[in-house]
Amino acid sequence: MPMICLSDFEAYAKKHLSKTTWDFFAAGADECCTRDENLLAYKRIRFRPRILRDMSVMDTRTTLLGTEISFPVGIAPTGFHRLAWPDGEKSTARAAEAMNTCYITSTFSTCTVEEIAAVAPNGFRWFQLYIHCNRALSEGLVRRVEAAGFQGLVLTADLPYTGKRRDDIRNNFQLPPHMTVKHFEGVFEGILTKEDADLAVRHGVQGIIVSNHGGRQLDGGPATIDALIEIVDTVQDRVEVYLDGGIRTGSDVLKALALGAKCVFLGRPALWGLTYKGEEGLRKVLQILHDEFRLSMALAGCHSVSGIGRNLVQVSKL
Amino acid sequence: MPMICLSDFEAYAKKHLSKTTWDFFAAGADECCTRDENLLAYKRIRFRPRILRDMSVMDTRTTLLGTEISFPVGIAPTGFHRLAWPDGEKSTARAAEAMNTCYITSTFSTCTVEEIAAVAPNGFRWFQLYIHCNRALSEGLVRRVEAAGFQGLVLTADLPYTGKRRDDIRNNFQLPPHMTVKHFEGVFEGILTKEDADLAVRHGVQGIIVSNHGGRQLDGGPATIDALIEIVDTVQDRVEVYLDGGIRTGSDVLKALALGAKCVFLGRPALWGLTYKGEEGLRKVLQILHDEFRLSMALAGCHSVSGIGRNLVQVSKL
Amino acid sequence: MPMICLSDFEAYAKKHLSKTTWDFFAAGADECCTRDENLLAYKRIRFRPRILRDMSVMDTRTTLLGTEISFPVGIAPTGFHRLAWPDGEKSTARAAEAMNTCYITSTFSTCTVEEIAAVAPNGFRWFQLYIHCNRALSEGLVRRVEAAGFQGLVLTADLPYTGKRRDDIRNNFQLPPHMTVKHFEGVFEGILTKEDADLAVRHGVQGIIVSNHGGRQLDGGPATIDALIEIVDTVQDRVEVYLDGGIRTGSDVLKALALGAKCVFLGRPALWGLTYKGEEGLRKVLQILHDEFRLSMALAGCHSVSGIGRNLVQVSKL
Amino acid sequence: MPMICLSDFEAYAKKHLSKTTWDFFAAGADECCTRDENLLAYKRIRFRPRILRDMSVMDTRTTLLGTEISFPVGIAPTGFHRLAWPDGEKSTARAAEAMNTCYITSTFSTCTVEEIAAVAPNGFRWFQLYIHCNRALSEGLVRRVEAAGFQGLVLTADLPYTGKRRDDIRNNFQLPPHMTVKHFEGVFEGILTKEDADLAVRHGVQGIIVSNHGGRQLDGGPATIDALIEIVDTVQDRVEVYLDGGIRTGSDVLKALALGAKCVFLGRPALWGLTYKGEEGLRKVLQILHDEFRLSMALAGCHSVSGIGRNLVQVSKL
Repeated sequence: MPMICLSDFEAYAKKHLSKTTWDFFAAGADECCTRDENLLAYKRIRFRPRILRDMSVMDTRTTLLGTEISFPVGIAPTGFHRLAWPDGEKSTARAAEAMNTCYITSTFSTCTVEEIAAVAPNGFRWFQLYIHCNRALSEGLVRRVEAAGFQGLVLTADLPYTGKRRDDIRNNFQLPPHMTVKHFEGVFEGILTKEDADLAVRHGVQGIIVSNHGGRQLDGGPATIDALIEIVDTVQDRVEVYLDGGIRTGSDVLKALALGAKCVFLGRPALWGLTYKGEEGLRKVLQILHDEFRLSMALAGCHSVSGIGRNLVQVSKL
Repeated sequence: MPMICLSDFEAYAKKHLSKTTWDFFAAGADECCTRDENLLAYKRIRFRPRILRDMSVMDTRTTLLGTEISFPVGIAPTGFHRLAWPDGEKSTARAAEAMNTCYITSTFSTCTVEEIAAVAPNGFRWFQLYIHCNRALSEGLVRRVEAAGFQGLVLTADLPYTGKRRDDIRNNFQLPPHMTVKHFEGVFEGILTKEDADLAVRHGVQGIIVSNHGGRQLDGGPATIDALIEIVDTVQDRVEVYLDGGIRTGSDVLKALALGAKCVFLGRPALWGLTYKGEEGLRKVLQILHDEFRLSMALAGCHSVSGIGRNLVQVSKL
Repeated sequence: MPMICLSDFEAYAKKHLSKTTWDFFAAGADECCTRDENLLAYKRIRFRPRILRDMSVMDTRTTLLGTEISFPVGIAPTGFHRLAWPDGEKSTARAAEAMNTCYITSTFSTCTVEEIAAVAPNGFRWFQLYIHCNRALSEGLVRRVEAAGFQGLVLTADLPYTGKRRDDIRNNFQLPPHMTVKHFEGVFEGILTKEDADLAVRHGVQGIIVSNHGGRQLDGGPATIDALIEIVDTVQDRVEVYLDGGIRTGSDVLKALALGAKCVFLGRPALWGLTYKGEEGLRKVLQILHDEFRLSMALAGCHSVSGIGRNLVQVSKL
Repeated sequence: MPMICLSDFEAYAKKHLSKTTWDFFAAGADECCTRDENLLAYKRIRFRPRILRDMSVMDTRTTLLGTEISFPVGIAPTGFHRLAWPDGEKSTARAAEAMNTCYITSTFSTCTVEEIAAVAPNGFRWFQLYIHCNRALSEGLVRRVEAAGFQGLVLTADLPYTGKRRDDIRNNFQLPPHMTVKHFEGVFEGILTKEDADLAVRHGVQGIIVSNHGGRQLDGGPATIDALIEIVDTVQDRVEVYLDGGIRTGSDVLKALALGAKCVFLGRPALWGLTYKGEEGLRKVLQILHDEFRLSMALAGCHSVSGIGRNLVQVSKL
């Protein structure tokens, strides 16, 4: 089975993972409306491609808060990578380092930050932290994360409430006994409204990740790509705005950037890549997205990331 | 089969009820467009969740005309509960009392108001009465209802016309001979336009239930959640506005409240709960909705019912 | 098999007619978009039912150019009734007379106007005539039609172009040799734009039938119910406006009247009724529509046809 | 199997071509959204047919930059015709000449321009050239094309980037060794925005083909019929505007003309015609489209191509 696009990896993962693990990765809250909307919303956005331009030089590089990455796709914080591949987050870290992009390590990792740092010492990494939790515990973890060379903290403003994922309840999903979560902490991600975006900026954040947690928390919320515009318009270049959720092709990335995202982050597709062949599988996922993104840029008439603007797309009124 | 969400109860009821009874409960008028729209309309409403809020204290309580209930979900008037469970409305009354919410007893009950009052003496109940009927007969029934401790009358402004439910005609649906309807009367519920809402308010009602009778009467009418906004805007806090029809998850409840409903009432899902395990089944249905509603509030950033407002949602133009 | 709604008759006809005849009756032009839109368009119209009204007296009667009919549903001109039932148009004429409504006899009838007049001498009938044809031939036919007591002419402004109905070409559809068409003439029906409506009124017509010939001619034209509003707004009570196409329930009739139609005409459903049991079958179709229309009126708060107005419906922007 | 409409030819081709060749002809980029939108977009356009007009004289002829063609449908540049029929582009040229319309020969032809010119010496042909390529090589080819009597050049502003067509990658699609592409050059087609249209006009082109290459390049771009209006409004009669993509019936042609196209060009349907019976098959495809177009004109009230205007259609807001 040749791996040509991200859905090939999805099919592979669905076939090879246990039902309980697949269901856990795939799960959305309640009726999964928001999870599915994350993907469908991209189909309502139309490109306005420009063809009369010189495309002999192409550059997909960009920066995240000043650090250069090879293209505007990073790894979103998802938990329990050892459910997908024995090495877990160590493979993820190596793939991200090899592809020269950013890996946001989840609090719910099944490797320690020290293990992760050791296998990919030159990797560009941020750490995801939950806020509202035990401050002392958080402080200890933050010190470890800093010591391990992580360059940023992603604060997730969720309470300790977990969305209602019906299949996980039916499957009685639990982490296998030989895997344990290595960190417990709290911190900024998950913003979907201009009010929260404005609040976050006024509190001094440097970036905002527009996210609905892959539709796993509140069902009925907007697709992230739909929420993006309102937030970009509010933030107005004061901070960088990122997005996760629903990215499946390079043209999805191009649409997100056209609507104002500085970078997007991959959730489930990273897990499918890990499931396929660990580090190699995830590298392949990232490489495919890179190549598709570059081709979409070329066909749409953008030779650099900075040249991607809102006039590249037309958003349906629907 | 674990019961995790309301559709699990629907599946159970469809499997265990006779076809004739299932068809009668499920029936919509004509082509069932309005019945189905009642559910679909919720999917077109998107939350605008606020995440940067302290959710350490949560309260789902509210009031109905001054009486406190544990959360804004009551039992709508539906008939013939003994078709679902031997004890019929007695089980319904006990479940509503146990969950501390309001039960609107139907004129088409298969237990008397005195029997219902006896099994749940502390329950909060209203009685549904059809208007335009024999006044003397109505007066007698109203006196019995008052004597039995019911705290309110719900006037249903329908004529003795029954919507055309094709399956019921095909099945030649009739109440089994050992079950008889205990009351015949007439009274306010079923309003779908601002004109009628205004008329009702000027005639001194204390509340309005936006209802299309589960899509069982006029096919082609609006989903109740779609009709709600126009009525709330007209009524402007002069009276309380409620809604029934299409509630299947806690996030549906949250959407209805965001659009101005003070409380929603459950129709068919209550019958599914009764079918499952009588009082215990209906309690379980209510408990699931309560937990889902509370979780939706938490994930959307609302710590109390009074804090739920229209800026929590975005209604698609469709 | 009980016959409860018009689609029961459709299922019967599909099962009992030869494939060639069924295909001929069912055929739409090209990809059948317009044929199907005729039905779907009704689903996008929502009632605004009024419930706080006295419905103790109900009246479904109306008039066509001054002649009273029992309810606003007549028989549209369709051809070849002997393909559906041995007696052909004679059964149609008897059923329309019995139900006290108008029958528009087609030029493509398989009985003569004299035969039709003889079996239903008190019936209210109009005759459909194609314009642009041989004038002398037309004049002769008009004299026969007048002599046979027909009360009106319906001019159909189609050329001798027939829409491309793929199944008929595949089936090589031809009228069986023992059936022959009895009249050849030309005449007003088929208007779908305000420009043509205005032209027709200025040329002195007394009524306009908004029609797309059941979607059998130009594929890609509007549903008749969608075209109705523009024409009603243009005509402004100068003449009566009627409609055919897509009527399947009594609530469809109510919607058409709410949008300004004085009466609707039945095409294919009349043929299904004939197929079922000739005159008796068609009477049953009309009786079902009458009962459904009366019930819809009652549930929507209209006690007479003259009280049906545009504020009874809300048309989706889609 | 009678061939009645273009989809009959599609079914034939799908059945008789090898899977690899069928996939290559049918392929769209990525998820094929744009390819499919090309067709679906026509379904959202509604005619406003005029029926009160004299249709006794009908004329489907038009001109392309002054040259008369029998009806406004030409052959779009598609490659590798010998995959469909042994004679390849020679059959295409003969069919176009016989039907008196324009054939845009692709750079990726499997016959030489001299062979093509020899078999249809009186044919009206343009040649498609890719721009941005080796200038010297292009100049040589242009001289051969001129010498062979081609009357125009169609410049395609695509880079040497090919859209990602998943099935072709899976099938490892390659031209069979006995077939070789005869020309390599570069040049105007593929414009989808007003900005590019304006640029092209200011650079002196005589016509613009609104095209997305059958949805084979950038997935997520607009349907060509949706892009047409913006371009026609910008160009304002300064040059002729054409369109390819999604034409399957004569009424599609009529819609494109109503929205301002001077002519449309056939891509895949031409290949299906060739697959069916070479020159004869393609002639049949063109004849069917001609007859359908003429009938649509008649039923819509247009007796000549010049009388087709924007008031003939209503474009849904969707």
